[in-house]
Amino acid sequence: ELQLNLEQIEKGGYDHFMLKEIYEQPDAIVDTYRGRLLVDEGIIRMAGVDDNIEKFLNANRIIIVACGTSWHAGLVAEYIFEEFARIPVEVEYASEFRYRNPVINEKDVVIAISQSGETADTLAAIKLAKENGAFVFGVCNVVGSSIARETDAGAYTHAGPEIGVASTKAFTTQITVLSLIALTLAKAKGKLSKSDYHLYLNELELIPKKVLKALTANEHIIKISETYKDASNFLYLGRGFNFPVALEGALKLKEISYIHAEGYPAAEMKHGPIALIDEQMPVVVIATKKGHYEKVVSNIQEIKSRHGKIIAVVTEGDIMVSELADHVIEVPETVEAFTPLLTTIPLQLLSYHIAVMRNCNVDQPRNLAKSVTVE
Amino acid sequence: ELQLNLEQIEKGGYDHFMLKEIYEQPDAIVDTYRGRLLVDEGIIRMAGVDDNIEKFLNANRIIIVACGTSWHAGLVAEYIFEEFARIPVEVEYASEFRYRNPVINEKDVVIAISQSGETADTLAAIKLAKENGAFVFGVCNVVGSSIARETDAGAYTHAGPEIGVASTKAFTTQITVLSLIALTLAKAKGKLSKSDYHLYLNELELIPKKVLKALTANEHIIKISETYKDASNFLYLGRGFNFPVALEGALKLKEISYIHAEGYPAAEMKHGPIALIDEQMPVVVIATKKGHYEKVVSNIQEIKSRHGKIIAVVTEGDIMVSELADHVIEVPETVEAFTPLLTTIPLQLLSYHIAVMRNCNVDQPRNLAKSVTVE
Repeated sequence: ELQLNLEQIEKGGYDHFMLKEIYEQPDAIVDTYRGRLLVDEGIIRMAGVDDNIEKFLNANRIIIVACGTSWHAGLVAEYIFEEFARIPVEVEYASEFRYRNPVINEKDVVIAISQSGETADTLAAIKLAKENGAFVFGVCNVVGSSIARETDAGAYTHAGPEIGVASTKAFTTQITVLSLIALTLAKAKGKLSKSDYHLYLNELELIPKKVLKALTANEHIIKISETYKDASNFLYLGRGFNFPVALEGALKLKEISYIHAEGYPAAEMKHGPIALIDEQMPVVVIATKKGHYEKVVSNIQEIKSRHGKIIAVVTEGDIMVSELADHVIEVPETVEAFTPLLTTIPLQLLSYHIAVMRNCNVDQPRNLAKSVTVE
Repeated sequence: ELQLNLEQIEKGGYDHFMLKEIYEQPDAIVDTYRGRLLVDEGIIRMAGVDDNIEKFLNANRIIIVACGTSWHAGLVAEYIFEEFARIPVEVEYASEFRYRNPVINEKDVVIAISQSGETADTLAAIKLAKENGAFVFGVCNVVGSSIARETDAGAYTHAGPEIGVASTKAFTTQITVLSLIALTLAKAKGKLSKSDYHLYLNELELIPKKVLKALTANEHIIKISETYKDASNFLYLGRGFNFPVALEGALKLKEISYIHAEGYPAAEMKHGPIALIDEQMPVVVIATKKGHYEKVVSNIQEIKSRHGKIIAVVTEGDIMVSELADHVIEVPETVEAFTPLLTTIPLQLLSYHIAVMRNCNVDQPRNLAKSVTVE
């Protein structure tokens, strides 16, 4: 009983750790950029990057290795790094990278992402990369973890302990750290104008308040969840920066509600997945104003003409998608590169509520472990 | 009526074009390597590659752009190129590449893959790559198509006309062409020993006969299809060279049977998808002897302990997996890099028979077009 009470205290009034951690994201992002994002001085300070800036600037390419949700954060980072810093980035499943004799050498920088810092496949990928002479940088949440120790340098996310098996605040803080790195490299390489650089610094600082705003859609999302809780399948679609968010949204639903959800880059739909769409299929579409909005609107029209049910994540004040979609969930406006930090919030809440309504064990879903320390 | 008769003649005694095209693969592969793979002389002759060999050898990396099934052929090629020729390869969805301001320059070689040669997104990606100074190489099936005309050089697959909307022989002939290119570059770069090079040439020549052998599992696959035709979901798992085959197997089932099938690299299962597995979930696992067989066996054990139903594609004479799986389908042995050309065959047949049993329009699935000439 003491254990139970202790757990209730630890949940801080929330029904589940996952919900608590979803709501902790504004603070977790602030904690992650505190002392690093210095908007007034117009600089970013990250010792792990600053001390090794030559390694990054001389890199032929950056290879990101990770698993699960961290792999999705890596995919978002690919878009951000290439957009800001113009360095080619490749994102690999750690499990595939480690076993496939990858082409890698001392001109490569490897970034390993892992909440726990103990993910077995990622750890093995790091060792392989080091043996081949690559500079290895870690992005972990747990201080002193194996990956933090094995890497040449790194930057912690300061998300605080994440207890729910389905990762939430680890994801958004990983994107925060990776955005800071991308901006640092962009500045060092002279790839961003001074005004753009400052714009991004300002926008990043505003993200926690915007996440807080996005969280106010909770009651609306509960209603949507009631409508779709009995669905047996879901599709998630996004483009560009928000393509990985579609993958992550689908993974969340899969993990905790056991509904078969799959993410796709929206334009690939017509190369196969569109055959699945009928009136039984809810489709979650990320359709924020930035990011080829018109293209996404045309994808929505295709789904609609096949009678799929559309849940769209849109920018505040959107009119066009609202007329087409069955449901819209608004998020505040920001620069395109940072939209994943906002669009991911309603998808976390949607999967959470659906899982709760299906009486699933949200914090400890069947078959899953919090950190995968075996292969 | 004349039209119908003509169609029946064109189907050459098969019930559907798709089945005819599945069975045409041994010949299509021979047609594709004829005049190129010269085993007796110990050489590969491909004018499009030979005439531009410096472009390939000086490339910092090869970027493959494609959509749908062609994108899966590109993923297989990534493994083959990196293994044989040790050139870093990145595979991109054409739709994502074209809209994301990719990092690309005159040191990059872009390979565009498209059966029809008319895929709108791939065509746009090529134009973007050329504007940025990259050398662009096309792998198409349709002679004189837009992509064939727009590229700097190329190599045709000689699959013959593919009428079924779900691509089959285009996929295996694309892998054949890409393997020939990879071997040519490996030889030019001195990355393969003479004996290994000849071994691969010999093995590739034997593939059509082995495909023919793999096709003899048809009756056995019909029985398996009867067991699972009413499933509402499927998972497909593979590792290494066969990870893309898992994606392709799932896409085939999705396209023509409208069953929600999803492919995953087997080791990622424990980072989420394993939560979906219960006694209702058939899981297709590619578990050929080469390619981290023990790791795949351990994945199969995990699925079994969660009561998932296992359909395994194994190497002829396999014993270990046969004891664990509910069903096994054998394919002949070959070198690891060429296993996708064999393992993909039973997955094509499985999706075909399930779709027929569900009374789906196999050759013209709902919502899908043969060549996607719009965005």
